Amino acid sequence: MTKWRTSLTRIEPNKILVRGYPLDEVMGRLTFGEAIYLLLMGEVPSPAIGSLMEAILVSFIDHGVTPPSTLAARNTATTGASLRACVAAGVLGFGRHHGGDIESGMQFLDAGLELVRKGATYQDAAKEIVDRWHVAGESIPGFGHRFHTRDPRAARLFQMALELEIEGGHIQMIRAVELTMAGLPPGRALPVNIDGAIAAVCGDIGIPPEIANALFIISRVPGIAAQAAEELAREHPMRPIDPESHFYDGAAERRLPEKRR
Amino acid sequence: MTKWRTSLTRIEPNKILVRGYPLDEVMGRLTFGEAIYLLLMGEVPSPAIGSLMEAILVSFIDHGVTPPSTLAARNTATTGASLRACVAAGVLGFGRHHGGDIESGMQFLDAGLELVRKGATYQDAAKEIVDRWHVAGESIPGFGHRFHTRDPRAARLFQMALELEIEGGHIQMIRAVELTMAGLPPGRALPVNIDGAIAAVCGDIGIPPEIANALFIISRVPGIAAQAAEELAREHPMRPIDPESHFYDGAAERRLPEKRR
Amino acid sequence: MTKWRTSLTRIEPNKILVRGYPLDEVMGRLTFGEAIYLLLMGEVPSPAIGSLMEAILVSFIDHGVTPPSTLAARNTATTGASLRACVAAGVLGFGRHHGGDIESGMQFLDAGLELVRKGATYQDAAKEIVDRWHVAGESIPGFGHRFHTRDPRAARLFQMALELEIEGGHIQMIRAVELTMAGLPPGRALPVNIDGAIAAVCGDIGIPPEIANALFIISRVPGIAAQAAEELAREHPMRPIDPESHFYDGAAERRLPEKRR
Amino acid sequence: MTKWRTSLTRIEPNKILVRGYPLDEVMGRLTFGEAIYLLLMGEVPSPAIGSLMEAILVSFIDHGVTPPSTLAARNTATTGASLRACVAAGVLGFGRHHGGDIESGMQFLDAGLELVRKGATYQDAAKEIVDRWHVAGESIPGFGHRFHTRDPRAARLFQMALELEIEGGHIQMIRAVELTMAGLPPGRALPVNIDGAIAAVCGDIGIPPEIANALFIISRVPGIAAQAAEELAREHPMRPIDPESHFYDGAAERRLPEKRR
Repeated sequence: MTKWRTSLTRIEPNKILVRGYPLDEVMGRLTFGEAIYLLLMGEVPSPAIGSLMEAILVSFIDHGVTPPSTLAARNTATTGASLRACVAAGVLGFGRHHGGDIESGMQFLDAGLELVRKGATYQDAAKEIVDRWHVAGESIPGFGHRFHTRDPRAARLFQMALELEIEGGHIQMIRAVELTMAGLPPGRALPVNIDGAIAAVCGDIGIPPEIANALFIISRVPGIAAQAAEELAREHPMRPIDPESHFYDGAAERRLPEKRR
Repeated sequence: MTKWRTSLTRIEPNKILVRGYPLDEVMGRLTFGEAIYLLLMGEVPSPAIGSLMEAILVSFIDHGVTPPSTLAARNTATTGASLRACVAAGVLGFGRHHGGDIESGMQFLDAGLELVRKGATYQDAAKEIVDRWHVAGESIPGFGHRFHTRDPRAARLFQMALELEIEGGHIQMIRAVELTMAGLPPGRALPVNIDGAIAAVCGDIGIPPEIANALFIISRVPGIAAQAAEELAREHPMRPIDPESHFYDGAAERRLPEKRR
Repeated sequence: MTKWRTSLTRIEPNKILVRGYPLDEVMGRLTFGEAIYLLLMGEVPSPAIGSLMEAILVSFIDHGVTPPSTLAARNTATTGASLRACVAAGVLGFGRHHGGDIESGMQFLDAGLELVRKGATYQDAAKEIVDRWHVAGESIPGFGHRFHTRDPRAARLFQMALELEIEGGHIQMIRAVELTMAGLPPGRALPVNIDGAIAAVCGDIGIPPEIANALFIISRVPGIAAQAAEELAREHPMRPIDPESHFYDGAAERRLPEKRR
Repeated sequence: MTKWRTSLTRIEPNKILVRGYPLDEVMGRLTFGEAIYLLLMGEVPSPAIGSLMEAILVSFIDHGVTPPSTLAARNTATTGASLRACVAAGVLGFGRHHGGDIESGMQFLDAGLELVRKGATYQDAAKEIVDRWHVAGESIPGFGHRFHTRDPRAARLFQMALELEIEGGHIQMIRAVELTMAGLPPGRALPVNIDGAIAAVCGDIGIPPEIANALFIISRVPGIAAQAAEELAREHPMRPIDPESHFYDGAAERRLPEKRR
């Protein structure tokens, strides 16, 4: 049998090279977010791309107790399962309707950019792809949210992309789609959400859809783990978990310390 | 039914508060590693603890193709499963013999510190707990490695803890155990590994064992995801995966750019 | 590397031997339940043991929508995940407090039988082990149920064991424990449940605890799969699933056809 | 919130009704295979369909150590994970290229039957759909096997369907495809496999594709569990598992007892 190949990590006695870099040299010199980019994309990110990576990963870190993936993890926790079993159950819930929107969002924006390359304006291309998706009976990926009418994470990510000067065609396209969506009749006039913002930013910094999918999984695992750990620590086993019937008893709203802002 | 409680994340229309902090304010201001600490521990870490968190998370990010958890993920990938299914299969392999060593390592060091509190020297306490574990037929948690005789990650983490001035009793204790272990007959004279180093550092910065477990899961998910994505991208489906029969064809050994060191 | 061994199934071109028997000969000659016994235990079961195997597997096949494992599977299904992902999430919820009771039930009964072997009567042994478990702060494994004060499955399984003449020491012991439990003050006077009945029957027909565990997993997978398939077919995606807020709209209560009784 | 509905199992105090039948009455009267059919399809199967259900479930029960799903479960087992975690990891490997063939096989045969309904002969329809799949670059679902040139399970299932007189259009269609495939040039002249046989039989007895998928998952869980239990019992932890490097040391080839044939 011929040998199979890997290009990620090289292991030798007393040496671990991730994408060529000694892992002990990376420790303390790249952040976890930068190391994730290095591992997935093969190179150390520029400072601007590194900052966006951190922001993307932070944006998804948790969304409370009601996402079905979180509830799957909590229902697993209540049986007395190990934390890793709870995390696995949660990860399995990052399905087509939850998290998977980033990949479909990138395909949606790419369909628009294809039209722009053929000579259409961004605004005409946006109208065309929104129509095309609606005619096919599909919802517009990256728009609308169960809870938020203005997703604060999307706004912040666009602002960071602007300040870091990495706006490109995908962000321009999603801005045009935002305008188109705002002009639709009520019920269809949906706002951009964090999935859409990440799809656009990933498109502009050259992250392919399958890696964007990996980023979503990676980013939400801390939330799933924290929720399962809280269930194991605070609740009694085998309880029926009604998603709506909870209240928040954590820290009151507060601001980051001055030097962090 | 009385309402159940959560202290992690508060969701209101157009507002997401993680441990009290608006998530959009956290984006771009805390790194992913710092946000993980905030979510799990409830507070923004000090700069020194933040640096150690990043180093701990980076240290575990990947260990090549041979860990059984990675092989479970690759075997799942070869069936054509989704990336999230591969990651879940991999996470399930963070078992008693793999990753779980951090929790048992913390219990081991705590047993030594208990003796110190009762008046023993660190060196006597180290001898006592090593004996106790050997008599019980247990291996010493945090010592020995399938591949490495000197784990470069452990050395680096201890160095960082020293430089950041967060060394405490747990690191002192593991240093004493290292001395004891070095004096044992060949076969038992095992070196400290990264699990041991993380157990000691987590102990000294006040991270409880169940959270240290969560950190291990979080830190290795990027590696599992990258390995599964590589399997899906480079190999043909339904192949038999022999762990030994591979070679590395990635980037040659290299150093981080000057300004990163 | 020396070769590793398996004693379960031998694969040759155009031949599949399960425990030595050609699989195509087994098809149509052993039931699925008998084949499960063959695979796990190594031999074709006697007719009496075969009947008990079928009854054990049938007894656990489903328990409605409220077990946490079922809710984990339904929460995963609502994200649009594949059926296999939902089943995996459900299986992960067969935890310490759910299903795991069979193994602890067998250990509990074995502790009593140990005393009987040393000369105690069944009744004295039963009192002793119930005391011992209560003193240790443990609940009595195999007794009590969230919904049922008289578990109809347990009664039926004991009746079958009696009719098939396979009652042995484990069933005698659990009968003695039943008497002891009935004499306790309210709150502690719990009835035997299906886990307890299966633990006793498995003990008497020589199925070891780890295989009994496998039986529990195997028996509930159809229920998990059916529940997840129903969620995918009948409900809209991403809904919040309140376990209590459901009603049954299936077939009315009915009897098996005459010739099946 | 309006209540949601389930039609599978009704739970009342001391009463469990599966599809309307008291579960304690089903125990000892229906086999596990029949109860699986009842749960998934809603009615007690006829004796002929019951026999085919058992045969289908038995046919998939195990296929040795080399399927990737089995290897995922064994790699998880070697980390010291629980049996349920190993089973979950294995189930996740029932992917597009493994087990999923039943659903695509049913769609393939249905495409042929569509042509027959429009007036084509079975033989012409078979040629047409084989061509169509080849032109689309797809392999023919239900044909070809990594190990077997004549799948003994497929032959047996077809024989049983003939004897039980339940052959219908799907079996006729796959027979016609077999003839077409046999006339193709070497490399494309693949034999029918068990996935194909099950797709045809399920089609003829009215089992829809999503339920056929559930049957595949249910049928292989015993094999996954047995393989994981063997790994836990016979092998040392954290070993590298080379799929090819094993040998069989179980029971020698043997025949079922006379009265079972």
